[in-house]
Amino acid sequence: MDDLIAPKMSEQELAEFLTREFPQVAGDFTIERLTPQGVDLRLRVAERHLRPGGTVSGPSMFALADLGVYLAVLSRIGPVALAVTTNAAIDFLRKPEAERDLLAEVRLLKLGRNLAVGDVLVRSDGMAAPVARANLTYSIPPRRDRG
Amino acid sequence: MDDLIAPKMSEQELAEFLTREFPQVAGDFTIERLTPQGVDLRLRVAERHLRPGGTVSGPSMFALADLGVYLAVLSRIGPVALAVTTNAAIDFLRKPEAERDLLAEVRLLKLGRNLAVGDVLVRSDGMAAPVARANLTYSIPPRRDRG
Amino acid sequence: MDDLIAPKMSEQELAEFLTREFPQVAGDFTIERLTPQGVDLRLRVAERHLRPGGTVSGPSMFALADLGVYLAVLSRIGPVALAVTTNAAIDFLRKPEAERDLLAEVRLLKLGRNLAVGDVLVRSDGMAAPVARANLTYSIPPRRDRG
Amino acid sequence: MDDLIAPKMSEQELAEFLTREFPQVAGDFTIERLTPQGVDLRLRVAERHLRPGGTVSGPSMFALADLGVYLAVLSRIGPVALAVTTNAAIDFLRKPEAERDLLAEVRLLKLGRNLAVGDVLVRSDGMAAPVARANLTYSIPPRRDRG
Repeated sequence: MDDLIAPKMSEQELAEFLTREFPQVAGDFTIERLTPQGVDLRLRVAERHLRPGGTVSGPSMFALADLGVYLAVLSRIGPVALAVTTNAAIDFLRKPEAERDLLAEVRLLKLGRNLAVGDVLVRSDGMAAPVARANLTYSIPPRRDRG
Repeated sequence: MDDLIAPKMSEQELAEFLTREFPQVAGDFTIERLTPQGVDLRLRVAERHLRPGGTVSGPSMFALADLGVYLAVLSRIGPVALAVTTNAAIDFLRKPEAERDLLAEVRLLKLGRNLAVGDVLVRSDGMAAPVARANLTYSIPPRRDRG
Repeated sequence: MDDLIAPKMSEQELAEFLTREFPQVAGDFTIERLTPQGVDLRLRVAERHLRPGGTVSGPSMFALADLGVYLAVLSRIGPVALAVTTNAAIDFLRKPEAERDLLAEVRLLKLGRNLAVGDVLVRSDGMAAPVARANLTYSIPPRRDRG
Repeated sequence: MDDLIAPKMSEQELAEFLTREFPQVAGDFTIERLTPQGVDLRLRVAERHLRPGGTVSGPSMFALADLGVYLAVLSRIGPVALAVTTNAAIDFLRKPEAERDLLAEVRLLKLGRNLAVGDVLVRSDGMAAPVARANLTYSIPPRRDRG
């Protein structure tokens, strides 16, 4: 993608940012790896993410996709805490496995001056078929606000 | 709407269903009222719904919209725990007020045999301008599974 | 809505803008009226909008919703030809009547400095039940570019 | 994907279906190839697809994505003319090149009994960066109606 740029943060720096800025939820997630197109992010599924019947709740999958695109954007523009989601959509495709973590594969499709767009495939760890597909748009603050 | 039908459940029955089927989250929400088009639902904003800077988190707003359409559908077809979200989209319009509950105004737009569609406006309690707009589609199980 | 402002263009001015800037499609549409929340727009359904079976095509409904939000935005900020759609979503709820025009009821939900968001209900003329629901986001050019 | 199946139609059969069922628009599109995940579809950009400034119109891109997922679904389930779009969303990422065709890369993510979901990347022919991203859901008629 012509406007995509190389990461400015390492996986370690991204993980530290997550712990520092989102202490309430950082323990739920593990940054698996930075990828050429974005990032792979794991939701460490625990009791609090489940719904009756043992499936992972919709809001938990939404949170995974939302954080995934956020981290993918930050890894490219640096640790700017101010980017905000303006639009998100998610299709729930199959029931996730309750006993397995969820893995999100995030792909940045646009990284413009004002807006960034990414899409996400979510799978139960070890399974080929996606359980959800999502797309999110982030509004990026003007450059003078960036760290 | 020609395929919309009168509620089959009272507000009290809907609240009892919520408490029974979703004990993990029922305390976060209050059913304000059944409306001719759907339902009004309140998120009782607490510390765990907030993000740094004091704003309500995106996943919390998603959860409110998702549950709102679910309850609107159930109020019309009866207490079927098996309806599942197939698609959801949300636009975040303004920063919610941290000190105020969120109110979701849910409107059913379609209640078909297989699919139900609703949209949602979310406002900070007492404010006119919406903080989010959402739409959700639910897949409804075949009639033989209904209560 | 606190950031919504009174129209800057009359219905007549908006219709002239449409004819001047979009001569290819202006004949398909009629501006019914400016409303406190946005605009009502009519698609004058003709043979070229139909699909086999006599229903109005999805792209025709998309075009109606897209133009509707565009005109609602312009009516409030003035005739800026440069606003561009960044995101659009549409739910197809029922089959439209082939013999009837489509009426779009457009509601502006946000009119910010950079982004405008609107939603749309589309009905077959004279029918109560909506045939489609849409939401669109427009990116608004910086103020120095505005007319 | 575990529920994806091998194509039941050849590229030639799919092209003939398109010509037969959608004579109004078939000339605008070329089926490039069936792929393991779906289909690649070309919009042969002509004057009628353009907007002022020489860019391809949003409704034209919507039509490309919509038809692309439709053909991907049909290629796997056989020539069922009755599948209908229930939900579609599109992000417009960059301005397409007016002088170039658009190529849609369609990927089926779910092919269930009732619903099929696909996503689409659209590029100007020969360019790496996508100009649009879309996702669509199709409702599939009950099996007794299938050819």
